[in-house]
Amino acid sequence: MRRVFVAGIGATKIGEHWERSIRDLMVESSLNAIKDAGIDKKEVEAIFVGNMSSGYLQGQEHLGALLSTWLGIPGVAACKVEAACASGGAAFHNAFLAVKSGVYDCVLAVGVEKMTDAVTSDLTSALIMADDQEYVAFAGFSFVALNALVYRAYMKKYGAKQEDIALFAVHDHKYAVNNPLAQYRRAITLDTVLSSPLVADPLRLFECAPTGDGSAAILLCSEEKMKELGLEAEVEVAASSVATDILSLHDRDDLTTLVSTRRAAEKAYKMAGISAKDVDIVEVHDAFTILGVIHLEDLGFAKKGEGWKLVKDGEIEKDGKVPTNLMGGLKARGHPVGATGIYQIYDVALQLFGKAGPNQVDDASIGLAQNVGGVGGTVSISILKRVR
Amino acid sequence: MRRVFVAGIGATKIGEHWERSIRDLMVESSLNAIKDAGIDKKEVEAIFVGNMSSGYLQGQEHLGALLSTWLGIPGVAACKVEAACASGGAAFHNAFLAVKSGVYDCVLAVGVEKMTDAVTSDLTSALIMADDQEYVAFAGFSFVALNALVYRAYMKKYGAKQEDIALFAVHDHKYAVNNPLAQYRRAITLDTVLSSPLVADPLRLFECAPTGDGSAAILLCSEEKMKELGLEAEVEVAASSVATDILSLHDRDDLTTLVSTRRAAEKAYKMAGISAKDVDIVEVHDAFTILGVIHLEDLGFAKKGEGWKLVKDGEIEKDGKVPTNLMGGLKARGHPVGATGIYQIYDVALQLFGKAGPNQVDDASIGLAQNVGGVGGTVSISILKRVR
Repeated sequence: MRRVFVAGIGATKIGEHWERSIRDLMVESSLNAIKDAGIDKKEVEAIFVGNMSSGYLQGQEHLGALLSTWLGIPGVAACKVEAACASGGAAFHNAFLAVKSGVYDCVLAVGVEKMTDAVTSDLTSALIMADDQEYVAFAGFSFVALNALVYRAYMKKYGAKQEDIALFAVHDHKYAVNNPLAQYRRAITLDTVLSSPLVADPLRLFECAPTGDGSAAILLCSEEKMKELGLEAEVEVAASSVATDILSLHDRDDLTTLVSTRRAAEKAYKMAGISAKDVDIVEVHDAFTILGVIHLEDLGFAKKGEGWKLVKDGEIEKDGKVPTNLMGGLKARGHPVGATGIYQIYDVALQLFGKAGPNQVDDASIGLAQNVGGVGGTVSISILKRVR
Repeated sequence: MRRVFVAGIGATKIGEHWERSIRDLMVESSLNAIKDAGIDKKEVEAIFVGNMSSGYLQGQEHLGALLSTWLGIPGVAACKVEAACASGGAAFHNAFLAVKSGVYDCVLAVGVEKMTDAVTSDLTSALIMADDQEYVAFAGFSFVALNALVYRAYMKKYGAKQEDIALFAVHDHKYAVNNPLAQYRRAITLDTVLSSPLVADPLRLFECAPTGDGSAAILLCSEEKMKELGLEAEVEVAASSVATDILSLHDRDDLTTLVSTRRAAEKAYKMAGISAKDVDIVEVHDAFTILGVIHLEDLGFAKKGEGWKLVKDGEIEKDGKVPTNLMGGLKARGHPVGATGIYQIYDVALQLFGKAGPNQVDDASIGLAQNVGGVGGTVSISILKRVR
């Protein structure tokens, strides 16, 4: 099968972009990626836009054609890809398949979401669409409440304590300080987290990813196209996978594991020809602290029930065994939902290109990004590999 | 590159399905396609769901995981694909790329939309999201009004008359009589069309596709998988393409042509190694009579400004030179927007499988389906070929 390479990456700062629309954000990140590659934008043949809620929140669909128009390259193939908060990862997977197929040689995967214009009740309604509306939302569940259930179940089953799990948020903020694109560039303490308002028992406000606006883009090219464009192949997409699970928690056997992560990881590790121990740098979808912990386990970096120990023991730090979310994660870099999957791949690529600044991991050569939709209804995993 | 075959097709009747949800509809069409192929549903590896407005109209996103869950195959890769009314065609294109890539061997392309539960004002709001909300909807345009503009421009430029263009609706209804899945199975006269209420001058109600609920599904397999499953390769996907154009009419040079159709057709004809004259059976996206006429021209079946002559001269009839929309088209079969692109491919496949009943074209061996998002912001073209 054809090899697929990262030709360029681009992103906007995540935050409250009152002065700019969803259109502006995705155009900015796309142009940044094209500029990063140093190619003419007319080389782009197809665009896949990851986004969850533009119809509901902005009254705007058809983002593919909107973006190709405003990028100044109408004509290319384009569509929006949606898989709840895994929309970015799913868009990347489609872009990967597009190059792999041989039909396209130069493809943009873009993620975008604009959340801060919306009032909280609308955002709550938008986010619960990630689960089964008729069975879950009608029963009164919000998305935060579902994750609080998982939190309780995990603590009960494994005897883990909130003060250990909540450390994930402290970790994210520590690294976001050095990320110019992060939404919250300030360090926090465990006390700040545990004394922050209770959102859905036991989840505290500072254990939850914030709402934010942002867009990120990855330009993918085939091996032939890289040569034709005179680009040096530095980072390869070694694997891209997507797996689903039963959509709602009430039908699952176990609330404390995401089967979709395990399935997607199994496929991705096999495709890349590696195992968990080969991974140098990790991005996990820690929309809530408890999820970050669970993901470390489901990805194979810790035994079940012991993910929090990695956090507590400093093993997810820059110099630890499993350097994780070194640009701030969802908690501090931010979580513009449909864009997050692409931001994660952006951050992994930054490390592999050696451009992560003060947060750079020495000799990082294999990185993994895990993007989750709903409470694991969909999981996308991307593995990038430095080839130079 | 790998060859891609149609292994099975399925669909629901289009209509007002008050008793069933969007979930029920997409599960029904998917199971029908799997049953049609005669395989175990566990063979399916990935699902691409074409849908435009489930978030806005049903408060439900994440249709990929919802469908995989309710199909009883959680675990597969899945996502929703959106490109306005071309969502179905775009989902099919992604499914095609997925098999072509070598990553997947057995993939479902599903289209679904549920429109009749919504009040008219909500539907109008949902549909205009296909154009540029900030520049078009804010100025007061509805989707119907945009197409009325195109209608006026066409009549002025080419001297065509409404009584000729409106014949397209009469044509669609004539053939829908024999389609058990069609929303309106009754013949109408030109007088009925021209005396129906004025919706947006000059568009009459009976020149506009109705709102409807429905879902269609196509199961695609690689050549190797067809053999492994013991399926006979009868219909091949000879080409699948997507092309965009400047999203909004106010920025285009000419209102009377869809550049996106011409671009997508060029790519598709090249991929299939054919030209327009080789096509035996055509499905065009006649959401409005005038668009049906314009599509015939942009696809290369008539000179610019003369598409209406094909209709008037009976050349789009079953025994004409360009048999078109022989299962009722968007006007009479119905137009559940995100599902339409898949219904079109379903209808083309029916013909190539020789299962179109009274509407069957003798020896149909190459069929083309054209699916349009917005007023041509996105166009998807699929070409199927009988290989047995």
